[in-house]
Amino acid sequence: MAVSTQQMRFWSPEVRELEPYIPGEQPKVTNLLKLNTNENPYPPSPKVAEAVATVLEQQADVLRLYPDPDATVLKQAIATQQGVDLSQVFVGNGSDEVLAHIFKAFFIQNEPILSPDISYSFYPVYSQFFTVKTKKIALNANFEVNVKDYNQPNGGIIIANPNAPTSIALDLSDIEYLLQHNPDRVVVIDEAYVDFGATSAVKLVARYDNLVVCQTTSKSRSLAGLRVGFAIAQPHLIAALEAVKNSFNSYPIDRFAIAAATASFKDQAYFEAHCQKVMDCRESLIHQLEGLGFTVLPSKANFIFVTHTSNDAKQLAIKLREQGIIVRHFNQDRINQFLRITVGTDAQNMRLVGALKDLVI
Amino acid sequence: MAVSTQQMRFWSPEVRELEPYIPGEQPKVTNLLKLNTNENPYPPSPKVAEAVATVLEQQADVLRLYPDPDATVLKQAIATQQGVDLSQVFVGNGSDEVLAHIFKAFFIQNEPILSPDISYSFYPVYSQFFTVKTKKIALNANFEVNVKDYNQPNGGIIIANPNAPTSIALDLSDIEYLLQHNPDRVVVIDEAYVDFGATSAVKLVARYDNLVVCQTTSKSRSLAGLRVGFAIAQPHLIAALEAVKNSFNSYPIDRFAIAAATASFKDQAYFEAHCQKVMDCRESLIHQLEGLGFTVLPSKANFIFVTHTSNDAKQLAIKLREQGIIVRHFNQDRINQFLRITVGTDAQNMRLVGALKDLVI
Repeated sequence: MAVSTQQMRFWSPEVRELEPYIPGEQPKVTNLLKLNTNENPYPPSPKVAEAVATVLEQQADVLRLYPDPDATVLKQAIATQQGVDLSQVFVGNGSDEVLAHIFKAFFIQNEPILSPDISYSFYPVYSQFFTVKTKKIALNANFEVNVKDYNQPNGGIIIANPNAPTSIALDLSDIEYLLQHNPDRVVVIDEAYVDFGATSAVKLVARYDNLVVCQTTSKSRSLAGLRVGFAIAQPHLIAALEAVKNSFNSYPIDRFAIAAATASFKDQAYFEAHCQKVMDCRESLIHQLEGLGFTVLPSKANFIFVTHTSNDAKQLAIKLREQGIIVRHFNQDRINQFLRITVGTDAQNMRLVGALKDLVI
Repeated sequence: MAVSTQQMRFWSPEVRELEPYIPGEQPKVTNLLKLNTNENPYPPSPKVAEAVATVLEQQADVLRLYPDPDATVLKQAIATQQGVDLSQVFVGNGSDEVLAHIFKAFFIQNEPILSPDISYSFYPVYSQFFTVKTKKIALNANFEVNVKDYNQPNGGIIIANPNAPTSIALDLSDIEYLLQHNPDRVVVIDEAYVDFGATSAVKLVARYDNLVVCQTTSKSRSLAGLRVGFAIAQPHLIAALEAVKNSFNSYPIDRFAIAAATASFKDQAYFEAHCQKVMDCRESLIHQLEGLGFTVLPSKANFIFVTHTSNDAKQLAIKLREQGIIVRHFNQDRINQFLRITVGTDAQNMRLVGALKDLVI
């Protein structure tokens, strides 16, 4: 939609400058192999469908009524699964909304927040939205976070662990280093992909009053279609998130989402088995791609970040697309010769590897 | 949660000052007669449950995938039902989120926005959240909006029509007056309750490039449990809302909500019949309460706003609560002798009237 300068007079001046986030393509045709938005190739726990069916059976009674604004049932299921107290849990409409509230709650400070130069591309969008000063800290030559680079005045720190799109995880000792060196600022660890082999910082929450851990049900719980994310932190930080949330939208999570996500957190066996399946598929995929001459960064996520010395990444993405396979290419300094590829099932990965076999020189 | 001054150092300074919205109570016990949050006493269309059941049957395939970030199927159903173009529809996670985006998109201006002194109590919360200057314009002695009072420099205007909690509707000619006298500012008409007898301003959208109409599925469509709201405006205004939304949360509406709300918009006959039922119940309730000596403001909503010369409103609310009936009392200047009562079914209203018969002096 082209908006004329004259029409633009209606917009808030600061909104005219926004550069919105561009999510990975969600094509409406169905026969594509979608390896571009890091969705889980396996369905959610069957308990999810059962929980929604139960809501449906009662729908005459409940859909007409607002949901619990605190989603207490869901928070309790998360608290139990994560081994924390109910008062340490915040939930939102996807971890994107949780992250937005985090930026508003903690990061509007005099000093800039610090974040890796290569990371989740929604962070700078939130910064612009909430007028948060931001300073990017370069990853090292191996695309790793060096926590000593963060020893400078800041308004907070946000790091994705494992990082995206690089897939590399940080040790807990490094996260503790950040927490200890920033006792007056909030350190946010965005663990969207943590369940595929990295170590969660949730176990540090009890000891650090400046730690916020953010997670999502969209990846390891196969519930991207549901929009439920959460944060774990000490109650005085959760209180800031609740103040922000209740100044924006009282009831962000609907009755179906509350019931479905709750059921997912109660099925630990399914969760563990399917995270393991994805990790097994990942290792097999990495092995095959290395056989084709790809360099694959060490992944603890449900995606891999790959490059090939003799093949242009963008061209490969275009040629894969012609064969009905979508992967993600970022037209961004330092990483424009990489592709981010979601780990599929073994069968899906075989189709990808087969296509690449014919494409790479 | 009590947060100490020392702990408060982590919060963004501006968040320490927030005074969040307090939604009407959502009690977890079930035998209460809940007439406090303007929910519909009738269930949603049976097509809603069918649509969700269809998603469930396919859930292995779809829940693991992100929903359409644009919710195009839902927008098209709304466009068809409202008689507008797809490009004129914006959807959000409840009309509360739509309103929040409206404040960000249009109201951050040098001059204050104008709004009635008695209106939806979330408006001043959004103003604080987005640092929007706000000037309250007093309703007249009959609790009506006098549109000539709005002839002053402003950063935009927002009026609920019918207004809440007063229940009184404004004529379209008055809304046109506002639109014509503010050609460079956005006028927002919040029509959460419009389907119960007021006239929608949607038919003015084609003629006025400064009009945004906001509606919800929570009241007339009995889908408060689902969190779907929408706005109708010309495309250059929708573009501002999309820029804001895509800087905050790409996928605010989940797959169940998209399917369910779409089904509701496609069942026009059910919608019309049940709006009429609520209006019939309202007229009967008003008649009975007037018989008990209540003054009832002329309502075009699914709630009524009542006062009684010889009975204190707050005391009545407390005594009704003791009998398991919840109504809403606002401890606010000018209206603290009023109660806002949601229209129930005839049977529910009979229980309310019976209780009041014993209580009023």
